[in-house]
Amino acid sequence: MAAASSNTRYGERDDSLLIVIEKGNSISGKFTNNSFKSAPVITAQSHLKECSGKKVVLMINAGNANAGTGKIGAKDVLTCCKSVGQELGISYESVLPFSTGVIGEPLKTKEYLNAFVKASKQLKDNNWRKAAKSILTTDTKPKLLSALIRSGSKKIAITGFAKGSGMIRPDFATLLSFVFIDAKLNKTLLESIHNEALAMSFNRITVDGDTSPNDSSILVASGKAKENIKKGSPVERKIRSSVIEIYKQLAELLIKDAEGATKKITVKVMQAKTKKQAESVAFTVAESPLVKTAMFGNDANWGRILSAIGRSPEVNDVTKTSIYLNEVPLVKYGNLHPKHSESKSSKAIKKKNLIINIKLGLGKTSFSVLTSDFSEDYLLINSDYRS
Amino acid sequence: MAAASSNTRYGERDDSLLIVIEKGNSISGKFTNNSFKSAPVITAQSHLKECSGKKVVLMINAGNANAGTGKIGAKDVLTCCKSVGQELGISYESVLPFSTGVIGEPLKTKEYLNAFVKASKQLKDNNWRKAAKSILTTDTKPKLLSALIRSGSKKIAITGFAKGSGMIRPDFATLLSFVFIDAKLNKTLLESIHNEALAMSFNRITVDGDTSPNDSSILVASGKAKENIKKGSPVERKIRSSVIEIYKQLAELLIKDAEGATKKITVKVMQAKTKKQAESVAFTVAESPLVKTAMFGNDANWGRILSAIGRSPEVNDVTKTSIYLNEVPLVKYGNLHPKHSESKSSKAIKKKNLIINIKLGLGKTSFSVLTSDFSEDYLLINSDYRS
Repeated sequence: MAAASSNTRYGERDDSLLIVIEKGNSISGKFTNNSFKSAPVITAQSHLKECSGKKVVLMINAGNANAGTGKIGAKDVLTCCKSVGQELGISYESVLPFSTGVIGEPLKTKEYLNAFVKASKQLKDNNWRKAAKSILTTDTKPKLLSALIRSGSKKIAITGFAKGSGMIRPDFATLLSFVFIDAKLNKTLLESIHNEALAMSFNRITVDGDTSPNDSSILVASGKAKENIKKGSPVERKIRSSVIEIYKQLAELLIKDAEGATKKITVKVMQAKTKKQAESVAFTVAESPLVKTAMFGNDANWGRILSAIGRSPEVNDVTKTSIYLNEVPLVKYGNLHPKHSESKSSKAIKKKNLIINIKLGLGKTSFSVLTSDFSEDYLLINSDYRS
Repeated sequence: MAAASSNTRYGERDDSLLIVIEKGNSISGKFTNNSFKSAPVITAQSHLKECSGKKVVLMINAGNANAGTGKIGAKDVLTCCKSVGQELGISYESVLPFSTGVIGEPLKTKEYLNAFVKASKQLKDNNWRKAAKSILTTDTKPKLLSALIRSGSKKIAITGFAKGSGMIRPDFATLLSFVFIDAKLNKTLLESIHNEALAMSFNRITVDGDTSPNDSSILVASGKAKENIKKGSPVERKIRSSVIEIYKQLAELLIKDAEGATKKITVKVMQAKTKKQAESVAFTVAESPLVKTAMFGNDANWGRILSAIGRSPEVNDVTKTSIYLNEVPLVKYGNLHPKHSESKSSKAIKKKNLIINIKLGLGKTSFSVLTSDFSEDYLLINSDYRS
């Protein structure tokens, strides 16, 4: 992999990344559910159908989303795929494009192509940190994680990086994420691991409830091993739990670096009747502007939390609802908790990591969502930045 | 009617209002759909079943919502209803209580009762402005409207006032609204006018997507006339359209005075396949934090609008979508409009009244929503104020 600079939006900062994946790989790709899809997402979805197993190149640019750019945008993607394919001796259909940045401006194709060609001549085995940095937009930090698994005498590396700090909600969330398993797994197995990892991570975070036309998550198995990993084997279970852990941690890094975030908030719903009910309550609370601004203002405002629960379309009874903030009791059976202490809850709310624990008293199902608060900085970032 | 001060949250400002409605009236009440309901809402819903036609008192306090206050809250409401009823010589079941303000704190019953007793001794026929002022919380202005209808030689007055500037979304929105028709209408007819007026007004506005446990809307026909207004008659049609107009204008006043609002934004969806689709698109755009912050920042960011449309669960095709901002073209068929002009759209976005016109190209149904932007003030108000 290698990154270079297009010298456009971010000046000399690297913003153009190539990752070459050798033959024998398996690739699983998941893309935005937004019906407004960027040109690179449409192209990547189509190319992905054909290229698995072949030598493949991931081509990623930051600074321009190439979304809402019509026929010109589609043509620009193709031009880039063709040039990069030629440079690296593969078909243009084996190039998977990804873009992130401003929506609706035409791609500066010449500049980005220059950067990609430059990158194609500097490919290295170990450029992870550079790669993780090159795809950032409003993020303040790269998000890069790695794990090493042992299978007998062999070691299997799992490494991934992601970007995204606004326009984030599930279904599914995150702008771009790339995770690589240095082992041989067939496509079906890889898809099942990818789905499980997403359900446990990017599908449980929300910043603002908005999604983008560019969301893409790629999970790659390099294929570099003799042994084919079998579903249900001890090593497969190790890989699966390690991949899930990496996705969860990437999701957590996204939330910690969410636009303007001053707090990491876990909304943990318990005792729900159904998963749908638990999810609905968790997301209604996590996306309530009044809850998010109260958390920013260090106000343990349980009335807003209870109001958000009460307006969830899946709930018609809050008389069994209890709420705790970092284990400090706030609400019991829909009313002020008899053990409520203003001083204890004021102290709890000032923490940087908050857990809002909601017990609905209606059943046995749980669901958690990770989110951030709404700060003045969120507002300033999003009223200034054209994204 | 008369208002007095409890000398609690707002010092000497009037915060306690009584409105006496004489015998022969019809009253239609609509209350929050939030399953978290305040003690006064529960009581008012129950009392309303019995008291229509009798002499009735509306008893309204601002500063404390009496929500999430459990058995004590329920007892406090009853105490107030009983004392006020006694003072005015009616049953406590003919007193309809309404509260707005902080959630979860016990009502200062003694102080509010003092104010209500004081008010009960100062009742006047024409205290509208004082009444409209006494129910405000974070509102910066009273919202009071009146219309006069002619029916032959007779005049019929329709007067109403409302409060609410945050925790506002449909289903239904507004904290408190009281509208009075000085005529005789039966309950069924009044309900039908109330429903139609709500559908055209408070159910089409949103500030933050949050709702409160205290939302109440009351429509009263005084009954002071010999003639019973008949459904479908010319005068009924006049009254209906005038009531709807007052509700629409009250809703508009709420949005103009929404917490921290610097702009009034109409999201007008056209060419939808179904009403459900039109509504879903309108509310998804109107409640998108990224759209609202862009409007505040004078950024005609159509990418965020299109992204919000695309994530509406009712939409799976944005390739026929066009977007206009105050008639300046932004998007055509899901892409940058060929006639897009950065300077024209920059000029348009700086206006205080914005119309985002979305043509989906999928059918013939329209729906409009009124909303406000997200400003730094919205954030400061809601991170400071315990509501």
